[in-house]
Amino acid sequence: MDGTISAAGITGRTRVYGILADPIYHVKAPAVMGALFARHGVDGVLVPLHVTADGLAAVMDGLRHLRNFGGFIATVPHKTTMTGLCDALTREAEQIGAVNCVRREADGRMIGTMLDGIGFVEALRASGLEPRGRNAALAGAGGAASAIAFALAEAGVARLTILNRTAGRAQALVDRLRAAYPTLVVAAEGAQPDHDLLVNGTSLGMRPQDAAPFDLAALHDGQFVAEAIMEPEMTPLLAAALAAGCRIQKGLPMLERQIALMARHMGAL
Amino acid sequence: MDGTISAAGITGRTRVYGILADPIYHVKAPAVMGALFARHGVDGVLVPLHVTADGLAAVMDGLRHLRNFGGFIATVPHKTTMTGLCDALTREAEQIGAVNCVRREADGRMIGTMLDGIGFVEALRASGLEPRGRNAALAGAGGAASAIAFALAEAGVARLTILNRTAGRAQALVDRLRAAYPTLVVAAEGAQPDHDLLVNGTSLGMRPQDAAPFDLAALHDGQFVAEAIMEPEMTPLLAAALAAGCRIQKGLPMLERQIALMARHMGAL
Repeated sequence: MDGTISAAGITGRTRVYGILADPIYHVKAPAVMGALFARHGVDGVLVPLHVTADGLAAVMDGLRHLRNFGGFIATVPHKTTMTGLCDALTREAEQIGAVNCVRREADGRMIGTMLDGIGFVEALRASGLEPRGRNAALAGAGGAASAIAFALAEAGVARLTILNRTAGRAQALVDRLRAAYPTLVVAAEGAQPDHDLLVNGTSLGMRPQDAAPFDLAALHDGQFVAEAIMEPEMTPLLAAALAAGCRIQKGLPMLERQIALMARHMGAL
Repeated sequence: MDGTISAAGITGRTRVYGILADPIYHVKAPAVMGALFARHGVDGVLVPLHVTADGLAAVMDGLRHLRNFGGFIATVPHKTTMTGLCDALTREAEQIGAVNCVRREADGRMIGTMLDGIGFVEALRASGLEPRGRNAALAGAGGAASAIAFALAEAGVARLTILNRTAGRAQALVDRLRAAYPTLVVAAEGAQPDHDLLVNGTSLGMRPQDAAPFDLAALHDGQFVAEAIMEPEMTPLLAAALAAGCRIQKGLPMLERQIALMARHMGAL
């Protein structure tokens, strides 16, 4: 057993799960979830489901009527729209205003949750960094960054600074965080050297020509630098952090943690 | 390579197919199609989709919007209803009034066909029996039997006798066959010893207490006896036929032939 099951192992009793995305070709979840199912002896299979925004409501309605369908992962560009298509949302999905995993209940009801941030925090803890009491800076105010921000707040960081090129978006996220966590010290600006936890929640670093999400020259040892980007595995930010003597966390562990959380939300584990 | 692919082999580029049924637990198509895909290097996976009659229209509409979905096998109890849900039917599906395989075109249109009978005839030919010019008797006038009847007519049997406990149903099938094949000699009665090809298209023989679909005492060598039942593999009819010196064909080759025809209809091969 090498963590794989044979497709010939799919029977009439196998439970089906999906990942909804557009485009679909790049998704890694079928392989990662397949390996998780195999490790845990789960008789399930997760398949790619390519759906565009205009077909999403019809696909959701069809999936409601598939009685052996356990749920799905939702990714770009469906995370926000999905909040309006689910029958109920977890607190995380409500707060963040986005859904990345949906459980289909036996009666066809769809329960959405948002695990991007929780997966990130679990990965941090697995790397030995407890966020509680930390002074964190987060680059970005989009979907992934918002999820990470709420999860860091929930995990009890002492201060959270949101850095974003569009100041209005950063302030909007700060306002939402303040409403949900009144005792959290949160701001849309701040000097980087003060922070002991730096998190990149933007897409900056995916392409070689991207600007850095933080001032790389100001990185110093004692800081922990975490990345949400999975490809490339070693972003310029992570490389600079390593060179400056920081501890780092790559993007992939966040996905791996999430896959297990997703399997649990969908009732597969 | 032992005819299997690993579930870890499902990627974002894997094309998805389904089998729609209620109940679903007993379906064999995911394994058989999986093995066929593996043999031919097809990057596809066929999953069980459990849908009841009341959810069928919604599921069809959802599947139309899944852009990497190639099509599905339809089985009990959806074969007849499916004729009204497809956008177009092949001649076989029109004639028989049932659909057992649907291709999803790139624009979401659903094209239904009926391959039960053609699969049966292809399996006969593979066994060395050419139906053309034969004097055939068929037990049954239901869905499977109708499909076999039309395929035998299309294959050019000289005479076709339909035997059915409900005479009205047999006559209705005879009338439809006559309309489609005016030169075929077809009747709803007839003496068994005249026939050189006997086909069981009923479910008689699945349970030990079932009556025989033909008069077993009248079987004699020179006859070819074919079975549509897959379980048990050796029905009382086949056992009696072997004992009488007949050549026989079991039910499974019909399914195996069909799977390849279905893969072709869905554009996978």
